[in-house]
Parts: sequence; C-alpha cells; structure tokens
Amino acid sequence: MVSFSDVEEALERISPYIHQTPIVTCEALDDLVGTRLFLKCENFQKAGAFKFRGATNALALLSKSELERGVVTHSSGNHAGALARAAKIFGTKAYIVMPSNSTEIKKAAVKSYGGQVTECEPTLEARLAGAESIQKETGAVPIPPYNHPHIIAGQGTCALEMLKQVGDLDAVIAPVGGGGLMSGTCLATRQLRPKALIFGAEPSGADDAFQSKHSGTLIPQTNPQTMADGLRTSLGDLTWPFIRDEVDEILLADEDEIRDIMRFVWERAKIIIEPSCAVPIVGLIRRFAGVAKKPSKIGVIISGGNVDMEQLPWMKKI
Amino acid sequence: MVSFSDVEEALERISPYIHQTPIVTCEALDDLVGTRLFLKCENFQKAGAFKFRGATNALALLSKSELERGVVTHSSGNHAGALARAAKIFGTKAYIVMPSNSTEIKKAAVKSYGGQVTECEPTLEARLAGAESIQKETGAVPIPPYNHPHIIAGQGTCALEMLKQVGDLDAVIAPVGGGGLMSGTCLATRQLRPKALIFGAEPSGADDAFQSKHSGTLIPQTNPQTMADGLRTSLGDLTWPFIRDEVDEILLADEDEIRDIMRFVWERAKIIIEPSCAVPIVGLIRRFAGVAKKPSKIGVIISGGNVDMEQLPWMKKI
Repeated sequence: MVSFSDVEEALERISPYIHQTPIVTCEALDDLVGTRLFLKCENFQKAGAFKFRGATNALALLSKSELERGVVTHSSGNHAGALARAAKIFGTKAYIVMPSNSTEIKKAAVKSYGGQVTECEPTLEARLAGAESIQKETGAVPIPPYNHPHIIAGQGTCALEMLKQVGDLDAVIAPVGGGGLMSGTCLATRQLRPKALIFGAEPSGADDAFQSKHSGTLIPQTNPQTMADGLRTSLGDLTWPFIRDEVDEILLADEDEIRDIMRFVWERAKIIIEPSCAVPIVGLIRRFAGVAKKPSKIGVIISGGNVDMEQLPWMKKI
Repeated sequence: MVSFSDVEEALERISPYIHQTPIVTCEALDDLVGTRLFLKCENFQKAGAFKFRGATNALALLSKSELERGVVTHSSGNHAGALARAAKIFGTKAYIVMPSNSTEIKKAAVKSYGGQVTECEPTLEARLAGAESIQKETGAVPIPPYNHPHIIAGQGTCALEMLKQVGDLDAVIAPVGGGGLMSGTCLATRQLRPKALIFGAEPSGADDAFQSKHSGTLIPQTNPQTMADGLRTSLGDLTWPFIRDEVDEILLADEDEIRDIMRFVWERAKIIIEPSCAVPIVGLIRRFAGVAKKPSKIGVIISGGNVDMEQLPWMKKI
C-alpha cells in the first residue's frame, strides 16, 4: 500500500512547507544509555509535532475540488493542530471535532490556525458521529490521523530526513501510538540502512503494539493509562503489518520513568519535549542497561513538544 | 583594557572546549516584535549558559602553577556551575562559595562537575569573606564572574560567533547583569557591524545599567527585585564604560512581561530559557511596538537555560 518511493515523493512535495528540523545531541543523555543518541527534533516542527508532515502531504494530494470542500477529522491532540495549520496553507477549511475534555490550549491552537472546532462528548462514538455529520453536511474530505497511505508516507519523511542528516545510524527508534510515524520510519530505514535495528517504544500502560507483536495478532488498545497523550491510540490495519514485520522490538516505559526522563531532557538538553518523546529514551535506557554490545549511533525521533505548561507531570496537584 | 583582538583570540582558545551554539528562529516571536529575530542559543552551551565561555577563557590563560593551586569564586548561579565544569576540563580544583539559600539544583550541578562547595550566610560580606578565606588557605586563584578582562573577552565570543553565523544583523541585544556579556557583545559588534544598533536589556526591578546610563555615573544595584536571577548584580568598573559609551539604549521589562514571554518561548519556540532571556525579548516588543522603521534582523543573545523545574514563574504557590 505504501512504499519507500511514496516517502521520497512526499518529502519533495512537502519540503516547501515544513521545517527541516535539526538533530540535537546531549552528552548527559548519551551517558544514561551508554551510546550516542541523535535526537531528530520534531518538537521544532510547525504546529509542534511530526503530525504536520502527514497532514501536509495528505492535503497536497487533494484535488482542487476536494480542497474547496474542506477537510474534517476528529482529534484531541497534535493531529488537530497540524491539520488546521496545513489547511490554512492550502487555503482550505479544517473542521475539527474535539472532545469536550480537550485542553483549552489545544483548542486555542486549532482556532489560532483558523480551524473550525466542534466540541463533542469525550467518547469515540461521539467523535465519529460528529465527524460523519460534518462530512455529510459540508462534503469535507476526512483526513484520518494515521491509518492512511498519504499520512504514513508523510510521517516517513521524518526518518528519511534524519537518515540523510546522520548517515551511519545503526539503530533508529520512534514512539508508537497509532503507528503512522513508526510505519513511515520503517519504510525509510529499511531502504536506506537495511541492517539498522528498528525499535518502537510504548508506555507500559498503552502497550497494544507490544501485545500485538508478541501474540502475532492485532490487539486493540482499550483503556490506556498513560501521561503520554500521543500514544493512547490503537494500531490500524495499515500500520499493524509494519509493526509485525519490520520493527525488531517494542520497548516499554513506565509512568514514573517517562516523567523523570521528560524532566531530565528539559533540564539537561534544554528542549521542550512532550511525555511521548521520553518513552523511546526510557526504552533505550532499559534495553541497553548492562549490555556490552550496543549500537554505536541511535537515531531517536522526538515526536513533539506540545505541553500544557499548567499541567507538568512533576508538579504537585493542588 | 580589553579589545576585539582579545575576543578573537579567546574564541580560538576556547573553541575546542565549548559548543558552537545554534541560531534558532521562531515565527511566532517575530510576529510579536514585528521583525526577524535570530536567537543565539547559549542555553545549549555547556553548563547551560554563556558563562562557560568566560570561565574557560580565564582558566585557559592560567599558568601551570596557578592551575595547580585551584580556582575560587563566590556565586549562587551560572558562573558557579560554569567555573566548576571548566575547572574539571583543565584538571584543576574549583572552590565555590555559595550562599546557603542557593537552590539545591544549583549546588548539585556544581558538585556534579566536581566543584567543592562551601556554604555561607546569604550576604555579600559572608560570600567575600568565604572566598578570601579559601584563597588564603589554598592559594587558589580568584576568578570573578564578570569584572575581569579575560571573562569579558570570553563572553564576547558569543556575539562574535553569532555575527559569523548571521552576517547582516542590523541590531543586537543582550541582557545586562554585571555587564560582562554586554561588554563582550559591544566589542564584537562594533568591530564587525559598526553601524548596528546595540541594545542592552534589564528588568525594571534591577535597572542599575539604565539608571547609570541616564545619570552618566555608575549607580550600584541595591535591593534588586526580579525573577531574572542572572540580572541582579551591579555593573563593575570594567563593564560600566561599555554600557556608557557603546550601548545605544537600555530597554526595560516588567516582571509579568518576563514571566509571560518566558512561557511564550517555552510554548512556541520549544526551548528552555531562563527568566533572564525573556528580558531582551520583552524589551524589543516594547521598544518597537508601533514603530514603523525597525531593524530588519536582530540578533538576540539567549543567555542560559538553567531553571528550577519545581519553581516555574507561572506555577501557583502552594
């Protein structure tokens, strides 16, 4: 369904609109893992997350008449902001169905990009119904957050860029939510560094990819319990085969580790990362503790930096 | 006392030890000021602040016998950590007198670099007495935080690098505490971009440079009231002439503005800056609000990123 050439074409297509994000290194982090990490900083991407890549690619592939109808999605998180911002660039309208319990800051971000927010009850049924109703009413084109070939190809441009910036990585790692970023990462890495290890990382409290990979069948995520709000979703039928066939291992991270490493990165690397970005780093620390033979250069995809500054994980609740 | 060639030589001397920090841009910030800002990110410098440049330059200029005796300073802030880290590199001992009310995180940082912390009462007298006593006992060489030619030359390497990275700046701005960074910035800018405007920036609650410049005499800072903990110190006799003769204007920032812009940078630029770094940005926003003719490219020195994550300015006190 999606191939490496789709990723290559996506990068050419979206390059005028995206930031080529930098690679950041941090000795203090290297010391924790015991090898060299190269952080691909999508927290510096437009709209604050890699999601802008997929959204931009999807919009760039719409016809003029589709763009005239607008686009619609349901999301409480980074896809909402990314789609709204990309829609503004392509001069189309973004209808975003957001659960009523979305944070004010995320609703404000969507609105600031000109997105039209419709609030709904915080259930999957209400979200789907909301999006479907808008679609019927306006003819807007649905742009799903990850289970779509154009989205997967767009997210793959992140690893593609990273592998061009640091040519000799012998392992890469990305967090796994719905699997769009992970699938694209597999496509780019398998083509350019066929022998590199490919790791995925998940919170222990939302470990559907880990469970699915170990059982050999797609097990949906139910009742996720994690502060890593980008990683609570289930794999899709397009992303699951990449996890099953291309990812070497899924690494896990517990909540207290996610909190501590997120804070460590803020304090030492001086960059704002969201909780989801700490998950791969924790996974690597655990995976390579006491292991003599480690990959010597690991590419780590830092997925985003959208954080509610009022609600930091290490802040005491009042 | 200090010249541009001292800055050039300092850069050559310290280059093997420091990070050449990146320039970061942020459209959302540009929109606030109404022109293009180029952030020279010393928050990514070793030990988290530009202070590492001056400390490294000062240590590199010590003789072997001086290095054998060690170095001593009193500091509650970034100079302490920077000197300890530089001392480790040069294989010498750093004795740091820290007031007992220094944050635990700053004491921990100094210790983690191998610095020897001596606590004292939180008064200037106790700090001076503590440092003098160590100096007599050990023969350690005093390395002051800013009022020293080698420190000024070292801090000037920051603007020198920035002007090499972005050649056509027509204004530069730096925060003013003791004036070491500002003095070095003047030296580099006047040489390389003689027509560029040079701005300094201060909190309204610690405006000794502003007051001094307007009165034409050095007025020491007494009872500073600001969250910008790097900017509470007084100018020295070596730094004051640069403020008087080379800086075009000192811009001011109030506490609520510092807090809001610090948070804005975290949220939008996704980098950790300390309160002192918000001061020049606020100064520029105020200075150019409603002004039609603005500099088209302004270099902004982001001085550091050492923040106590438990004590963020927008966190409610419990």
